[in-house]
Amino acid sequence: MPPVLSSLHILHPRLSLYVKPLFLRKFPLPRRSLPINPRTLSSVASAQSPTENGDSRGRSGSLSAPPPLLEEAVQKIDVNPPKGTRDFPPEEMRLRNWLFHNFREVSGLYGFEEVDFPVLESEALFIRKAGEEIKDQLYCFEDRGNRRVALRPELTPSLARLVIQKGKSVPLPLKWFAVGQCWRYERMTRGRRREHYQWNMDIIGVPEVTAEAELISSIVTFFKRIGVTASDVGFKVSSRKEVLRCYSISENLFGKVCIIIDKIEKIPMDEIKKDLKSVGMSEEAVEDLLRVLSIKSLTKLEEILGGPGEAVADLKQLFSLAEKFGYSEWIQFDASVVRGLAYYTGIVFEGFDREGKLRAICGGGRYDRLLSTFGGDDIPACGFGFGDAVIVELLKEKGILPELSLQVENIVCALDGDLQGAAATVATILRDKGQSVDLVLENKPLKWVFKRAARINAQRLILVGNTEWQKGMVGVKILSSGEQYEVKLNELE
Amino acid sequence: MPPVLSSLHILHPRLSLYVKPLFLRKFPLPRRSLPINPRTLSSVASAQSPTENGDSRGRSGSLSAPPPLLEEAVQKIDVNPPKGTRDFPPEEMRLRNWLFHNFREVSGLYGFEEVDFPVLESEALFIRKAGEEIKDQLYCFEDRGNRRVALRPELTPSLARLVIQKGKSVPLPLKWFAVGQCWRYERMTRGRRREHYQWNMDIIGVPEVTAEAELISSIVTFFKRIGVTASDVGFKVSSRKEVLRCYSISENLFGKVCIIIDKIEKIPMDEIKKDLKSVGMSEEAVEDLLRVLSIKSLTKLEEILGGPGEAVADLKQLFSLAEKFGYSEWIQFDASVVRGLAYYTGIVFEGFDREGKLRAICGGGRYDRLLSTFGGDDIPACGFGFGDAVIVELLKEKGILPELSLQVENIVCALDGDLQGAAATVATILRDKGQSVDLVLENKPLKWVFKRAARINAQRLILVGNTEWQKGMVGVKILSSGEQYEVKLNELE
Repeated sequence: MPPVLSSLHILHPRLSLYVKPLFLRKFPLPRRSLPINPRTLSSVASAQSPTENGDSRGRSGSLSAPPPLLEEAVQKIDVNPPKGTRDFPPEEMRLRNWLFHNFREVSGLYGFEEVDFPVLESEALFIRKAGEEIKDQLYCFEDRGNRRVALRPELTPSLARLVIQKGKSVPLPLKWFAVGQCWRYERMTRGRRREHYQWNMDIIGVPEVTAEAELISSIVTFFKRIGVTASDVGFKVSSRKEVLRCYSISENLFGKVCIIIDKIEKIPMDEIKKDLKSVGMSEEAVEDLLRVLSIKSLTKLEEILGGPGEAVADLKQLFSLAEKFGYSEWIQFDASVVRGLAYYTGIVFEGFDREGKLRAICGGGRYDRLLSTFGGDDIPACGFGFGDAVIVELLKEKGILPELSLQVENIVCALDGDLQGAAATVATILRDKGQSVDLVLENKPLKWVFKRAARINAQRLILVGNTEWQKGMVGVKILSSGEQYEVKLNELE
Repeated sequence: MPPVLSSLHILHPRLSLYVKPLFLRKFPLPRRSLPINPRTLSSVASAQSPTENGDSRGRSGSLSAPPPLLEEAVQKIDVNPPKGTRDFPPEEMRLRNWLFHNFREVSGLYGFEEVDFPVLESEALFIRKAGEEIKDQLYCFEDRGNRRVALRPELTPSLARLVIQKGKSVPLPLKWFAVGQCWRYERMTRGRRREHYQWNMDIIGVPEVTAEAELISSIVTFFKRIGVTASDVGFKVSSRKEVLRCYSISENLFGKVCIIIDKIEKIPMDEIKKDLKSVGMSEEAVEDLLRVLSIKSLTKLEEILGGPGEAVADLKQLFSLAEKFGYSEWIQFDASVVRGLAYYTGIVFEGFDREGKLRAICGGGRYDRLLSTFGGDDIPACGFGFGDAVIVELLKEKGILPELSLQVENIVCALDGDLQGAAATVATILRDKGQSVDLVLENKPLKWVFKRAARINAQRLILVGNTEWQKGMVGVKILSSGEQYEVKLNELE
């Protein structure tokens, strides 16, 4: 450790500024300009914009003329992102990165490999005939080559497409995850947006319920990592197998009925009944179905179904595995859960907040028959989608949103304009050693530098002053302790 | 370290499989099914697809009926991503992640904060009047609310929009970076695609050339990190200031002329001349201009310009700073570099491969007047874009593409179907300790498990067998050394 210099402020006149910052306002230092490029912010601020300088259009340029203008009429643009979309300024981006980092870390712990697909897909990939909302919410258009394309509303169809494409060249099971942006043109209510990012994990090639159990385990691990507990959230689990099928629902209605039932908590029961009848169910069948859907006990379901069918067996195994994985307290049977996508064929699950304030946090299930709808051979598969919106609302609700701030290790500042190059050398030395550096690119008063150092949470301020530089040294100030010392350039770590 | 068990294969009959794998083919073990869920892959593979089972449509479901089909006619989809777009299967995704990781690490070293904007923006943001190619290459359409929108072809206009929106609430300078997908409907030639990811770094609020110097320094740092040297690539640097303006180019032609000149290495000189004349330049002015553009020496430029103007002063300062940053050997003056975007106003630069085989690797420059074209107050700014395509071609060319493979620390396998839950417990213990685990989800022969272990580069195989489990232990095999031992569950690290 180099010797601490308690009198560092004597070495250079500007250094004294930060020990008595109050003087700054009374006696501001004159602005020095750089020797080569004398432009200053104020000269730029006063430069005329094209509107103020309309008569200049069409004039020939010459060496003495003002800098060239973009030949644009000024169009006052809307500074907001398109309706339903988001900008990610630094503070929002840090939150997004933190969330995605946790998605990726958990997926890695489970041995999943990351994949991605185009945001823009062929429209045909998303058009299914089960009356899903998704169809009317597609961001679709015709491209310049007259192809019908759509911004993906979900990731699973693209995954299925890639699995078919890869065919037998990839050994099963595949354990894939993705974090991708999805688009739905939804009515804008209660903070709903038209794009969101979705974390997907999928297991392709495993018919056993162990796959569903593994997927739910990974979500539980994610919740735990970000501070969400079993008293905050839970999973409702059911199976589409017998729960729906045993009550006189014809197979070509199956998808449509699932989609109607998925809205059971969102729209009035009368409307649900009306919708079910409108697709062709009898009054009696609707009543039967709704009775089954209200069941919250597996034993009760078994009773009503008149014995242990496949659905009950699957669910029993899932609950048994949940115990072994250690997340029993997180899951419960709820026959009303069917999920809103047509392609699920077996177990379905969704994550919910126990206070019941929010939409589903995540959802998924088994979709053993999706590939054949695209013309491929079926392979057993299951997966889930976990959006980036509801979870953030939950974290806010619980007051456990992480505080994420910018942190740059060093701020490097030249004390004279003609030492700007020297400061660049110092920054390069530090960066070569893996240290992050905010290099002050202009000649700024030290008060400004300290303010910036505080804003970026810098640990050290490196000052490049003439006297020290001539000795091959720089001044270092540890910002947390106020400790100051000089250090030789080649000893700077 | 627990004692090494050299005779582990005696403990369980299936363990002997991996010491004599050749026997497997002659005497395959019978497939055991799980007690609860008797489905197997083969039963799934033989399930009929909807086309093969057309008569089932419309039939009522019952407990004994086959599982419900998705009610879809089979549509044979194109398994390829839309023309000009990419899938990212795991091996491609690892490369993308490696690249993005380096983008982010370097940006962090320079103290830049990450931001992002919507992929879908208002079309107006990208329509400029300078005749840029970009206008004809927009993926644009009308959304369901009759708004003209476009997939972003570049990130800078969105950044400008956000800067105007933030207004005085953010302290300058801003140092922002982004890694985002951009779309251009280009003719598909020489491996050109219609989407690519672009790394952008921008400095907003610094009029000094130190900003450009800092940006080029960050790209050099990136190149060095990924193994690209100054003998592989370089930067051509120029300034739009006098280089173009002093040769009788009227200001309303400025943007158009820049865009024509940007193609100087891509299309024949005769066509360049024709294009320049067609926008209104005289024969003489064209010849003058092309003479200036051929200059590769700053001294020569100064001579021709008849003294040190702003452009020469800027460039001299840049070369002086390059020395201090330590990247002199990477940059050279080349008057023909103007870049293809209308909004640049000062120094422009582009990264090129010295063998001249590839398109520009990256490019950027100063755009001090962009904000006013959107109706905002101008703030001095500069930035660059660095695509994910050409750099990968370069790495391939040089044979220095990194080898990135999946690596999962543990593979956990139950030796009996009824130990699947026990294996889940073991996987949970390891994951809770931060160890990545590929859990074998089905009852598979050990030969299969070893093959999978090799594919995922597992370091350890954890075997959960009955005898050991009853003692609260599991078998561990270190796959690199072949070392085997038993360990108590609570001592498993």
